[in-house]
Amino acid sequence: MITQPGKFIVIEGLEGAGKSSAIALVNDLIEQHTGQAPVCTREPGGTPLAEKIRDLVKIGDDSDPLCDEAECLLIYAARAQLIANVIKPALAKGQWVLGDRHNLSSLAYQGGGRGLMPLVTAVSDACLSGFTPDFTLYLDIEPRLGLTRAADRGKLDRIEQQAIDFFERARQTYLQLALQDDTIVVIDASQSMEKVHQDIRHQLMNRLPLLQSKD
Amino acid sequence: MITQPGKFIVIEGLEGAGKSSAIALVNDLIEQHTGQAPVCTREPGGTPLAEKIRDLVKIGDDSDPLCDEAECLLIYAARAQLIANVIKPALAKGQWVLGDRHNLSSLAYQGGGRGLMPLVTAVSDACLSGFTPDFTLYLDIEPRLGLTRAADRGKLDRIEQQAIDFFERARQTYLQLALQDDTIVVIDASQSMEKVHQDIRHQLMNRLPLLQSKD
Repeated sequence: MITQPGKFIVIEGLEGAGKSSAIALVNDLIEQHTGQAPVCTREPGGTPLAEKIRDLVKIGDDSDPLCDEAECLLIYAARAQLIANVIKPALAKGQWVLGDRHNLSSLAYQGGGRGLMPLVTAVSDACLSGFTPDFTLYLDIEPRLGLTRAADRGKLDRIEQQAIDFFERARQTYLQLALQDDTIVVIDASQSMEKVHQDIRHQLMNRLPLLQSKD
Repeated sequence: MITQPGKFIVIEGLEGAGKSSAIALVNDLIEQHTGQAPVCTREPGGTPLAEKIRDLVKIGDDSDPLCDEAECLLIYAARAQLIANVIKPALAKGQWVLGDRHNLSSLAYQGGGRGLMPLVTAVSDACLSGFTPDFTLYLDIEPRLGLTRAADRGKLDRIEQQAIDFFERARQTYLQLALQDDTIVVIDASQSMEKVHQDIRHQLMNRLPLLQSKD
């Protein structure tokens, strides 16, 4: 018997867009659909080494501020590690993978936010060799509203402390890339959580037959 | 008064080629020439964050083996950090910088050794934006001889434990790149240390007037 390869579903969005509750919902929907809970990953991170890299990116060092290029390359190092040691092996075994962020975050934050699009696209093209999620739900939110929600959760990390312009550029990049890619669906995350979850459920359930007919 | 920018001199070579004693010699020669000891760096490493990245590359994790792409990207992250926070600020102040390895090591080890030349050149081009050493001394040694010397020093690290073919490919890449770049000089490191140092002194002293006439 040939195992049908799993699918890679990603949740994307700015801080405070509601990714965590969306992931819990999508996790349940995938489990209902496939009969098996997906492998959940987060980026940067998701393997022992990639989590150490995450700490370098998130915490920073006041005596040695992380330069933008190093931030970008660390995130791609963690991603390469996660793809090689977690995502691809799971997909090959027929497991579904649910990602809290993936490459679109780098395009939005480091490419759009930091203005490093040439480096991001060069690394993305050379490193990922066309590997891409089957389906991405991008939770769109106005940065001020998202950051207010994120601040209510507790202390903001190094990335969350960037100026509002940074997040505006990241959001515009997310939206532009979603326009060009029919595997990315934009969800209006400024709505009530009930309505956001209704939209996510609708989009995902519509997409699942299409995803599986590709095999 | 406009400060004349410093120069960036790099020592390259396989394990056991004699980099450490060459660096001590070149350090002294630069100090005699400029009246000031150079800023010494090593790669990967050379800043607090870059040293943490070095540990990830050198030590590895048996439960989560470092994939080749992640290794390459971590080394470039450390390099970007070192250039931004140490090398460029020193050069701008007129200090000379003496590097134990730089970009040529990535071209040789990750590009040639690991077969990742497309990724290495993409990252190198996009990340370094043409920043390059003023002069590189490559200490050339047959890998078996170098590794025998390195093993005599003590336990071999994760990179030093690669198969001999890996180092053969790295050496061939070093030699090919040296042929194409007149800022790289090849020193025969299989000779006696006295003769190696005589060659280094000769090459460096010949080059110094040329380096400074470029300003």
